[in-house]
Amino acid sequence: MPEQETISEQEGYRAKMVKRKAVKDKILAEKTKEKGLLVVHTGKGKGKTTAAMGLVVRALGRDFRVIIVQFIKGKWDTGEKIALKRFEPQCKFYALGEGFTWETQDKQRDILAVQKAWQRAEKIILEGACDLLILDELNIALRYNYIELERVLEVLASKHEKMHIVITGRNAPQGLIDASDLTTEMQEVKHPFRSGIRAQRGIEF
Amino acid sequence: MPEQETISEQEGYRAKMVKRKAVKDKILAEKTKEKGLLVVHTGKGKGKTTAAMGLVVRALGRDFRVIIVQFIKGKWDTGEKIALKRFEPQCKFYALGEGFTWETQDKQRDILAVQKAWQRAEKIILEGACDLLILDELNIALRYNYIELERVLEVLASKHEKMHIVITGRNAPQGLIDASDLTTEMQEVKHPFRSGIRAQRGIEF
Repeated sequence: MPEQETISEQEGYRAKMVKRKAVKDKILAEKTKEKGLLVVHTGKGKGKTTAAMGLVVRALGRDFRVIIVQFIKGKWDTGEKIALKRFEPQCKFYALGEGFTWETQDKQRDILAVQKAWQRAEKIILEGACDLLILDELNIALRYNYIELERVLEVLASKHEKMHIVITGRNAPQGLIDASDLTTEMQEVKHPFRSGIRAQRGIEF
Repeated sequence: MPEQETISEQEGYRAKMVKRKAVKDKILAEKTKEKGLLVVHTGKGKGKTTAAMGLVVRALGRDFRVIIVQFIKGKWDTGEKIALKRFEPQCKFYALGEGFTWETQDKQRDILAVQKAWQRAEKIILEGACDLLILDELNIALRYNYIELERVLEVLASKHEKMHIVITGRNAPQGLIDASDLTTEMQEVKHPFRSGIRAQRGIEF
């Protein structure tokens, strides 16, 4: 534990913190633009969808209307889905994917499912049907070229200026990162699957 | 949009996916250990606390008892706190910090607040009072040496084997990463604060 400080040490600390606060306040005062953000969560690490769910909870607390469109995981009976039922109809789910591609083994069906999900997303964006829209695993659909990036960027560019959109999934295309206001890459530093621990209910799904 | 495939292309795809699924199923079958995880969210990017909140929602959907202890941000009237009120008493908050250190300008008060928060956390861990415990911004407290890492590791090592603990904050000490089952680093790829956009209600707080 830190030693008891002398009076002059305390004063030095206080002076440093006063200065730091002044700098921080000045920076904040310069940030004036308010706008709906285009956010991307990518990278190989965990937490992409999870952080999007955290944003959903935060937004729900602020009375935002939230819609979640799932592009890949179709059979989505996850903990978050169960918990967020409590917020219907303020929060809506559309799980339109048909499961992971290596579980369906039918490319045409996958493509159709993903395109159906995208049509739903387009409609939501063009109608401005919510304040926060999560397009979960859209990056995977883009990666496989199941949807054209150009079309996606075109629709995203036309969104209502107050609408926030969060797109998740590995391998976000550079064009999408460039168009985003905020991109975070989740990187795996240490992973339990490496040591034979299985995915834990309530934590991973 | 992809061209219509020939029958043989479809068969090739199906064969590849069947193989991939077999590999995946085999890997999953080998993962048998079930245990409470020690998870760390660190890095300079956004999403550390947010992803923890996503885990909270997932866990609540699975009927876990959840406790969140806040070490640094004291005046925590955030969207997630408001939304999660709907889950009381299954989900409990303890916001024991006194605000950011550069807002209090009183080191002794900061240290006392953080130590009080840690005492609460210790009690929760030793009593096994929940299934998922979030220690939000504990890494900051460790960084400033407001709490001893050795003591933290000792208490974490004694947790009930089914209890999940998530620790957030920049600069996670290496000793904590080594002790963790899963560490994710959130890296900033693109940030709106860089372009004069202010923190958005419902998204950033």
